[in-house]
Amino acid sequence: MEAVIRPCAAADCGEVMRLIRELAEFEKLPDQVQTSDQALREDGFASNPFYRCLVVEVPPECRSREGHTIVGYALYFFTYSTWKGRNLYLEDLYVMPEFRGKGFGKKLLGKTAEIGLENGCTQLKFAVLDWNRAAIDFYQGRGAVDLTAAEGWHCFRFEGEALERLAWGQPGP
Amino acid sequence: MEAVIRPCAAADCGEVMRLIRELAEFEKLPDQVQTSDQALREDGFASNPFYRCLVVEVPPECRSREGHTIVGYALYFFTYSTWKGRNLYLEDLYVMPEFRGKGFGKKLLGKTAEIGLENGCTQLKFAVLDWNRAAIDFYQGRGAVDLTAAEGWHCFRFEGEALERLAWGQPGP
Repeated sequence: MEAVIRPCAAADCGEVMRLIRELAEFEKLPDQVQTSDQALREDGFASNPFYRCLVVEVPPECRSREGHTIVGYALYFFTYSTWKGRNLYLEDLYVMPEFRGKGFGKKLLGKTAEIGLENGCTQLKFAVLDWNRAAIDFYQGRGAVDLTAAEGWHCFRFEGEALERLAWGQPGP
Repeated sequence: MEAVIRPCAAADCGEVMRLIRELAEFEKLPDQVQTSDQALREDGFASNPFYRCLVVEVPPECRSREGHTIVGYALYFFTYSTWKGRNLYLEDLYVMPEFRGKGFGKKLLGKTAEIGLENGCTQLKFAVLDWNRAAIDFYQGRGAVDLTAAEGWHCFRFEGEALERLAWGQPGP
């Protein structure tokens, strides 16, 4: 199947939002999605964007059962390691189930890696849920290292009231 | 002790590099440090910086045994969650051992959280080594959630040859 990997345009944000919701359902955490296509447009298409995104587009004759031609995406941003310098972080990589097995995920990942290297990044980081065996096999088969298992890194987060207490100076009991 | 929390200036990069090395030694991974103060200057002080940094500066009369007045730092950058929108990621938070117990870490963390909220971020994320009990207690005591323990997120990384193979199209055997 002919498909194009291209940068997401502002006009694609509605389609990307649809895919973001599909991925969150697959990850069994659909209630956590609080973004909107409007927020995606504002945050990704300003002069200093918070993220960048690639999409997979298939020709109209190959569209999905429900009529979609944008069938996958990779959302990433530049980060920094005080040990290794410039990094790229892959927030999401997703291909619709009916378009899997065609190499689209591999192409999205490859293009993301290429953009990283072209921009002087030495690492591509991401997070995977420990029960998502298919994803772990996909990444480890290509040489990714599980830093949680290998070195003991745990992901942490402040949000909501805890974040406000940190900022406005009532740091708990 | 009077101390100032202020944005890192390009001229401070040598001092921040010294603290980065101290932290890597504490984390028992000193060989991983491949950055330099020159790279820090280039990557943090361009029009589209890869990171931002706060430092703790004490007055000359309170300087360290070896004569340093910059005694801690917090290095962070803006990231993006497709579920929650704008995020802030805290790459490093460090205070020199002889200046601990004075609230400097708490102030660095508070100022970072404040910058995040002012910029519309809803989350502050970071990673901690599982054996670093003091850090985990410090963060969890303020309401941080361990996402690896709670939801099963593992940190992964591609680098070196694996990253090049992804990008230039020889995806393994």
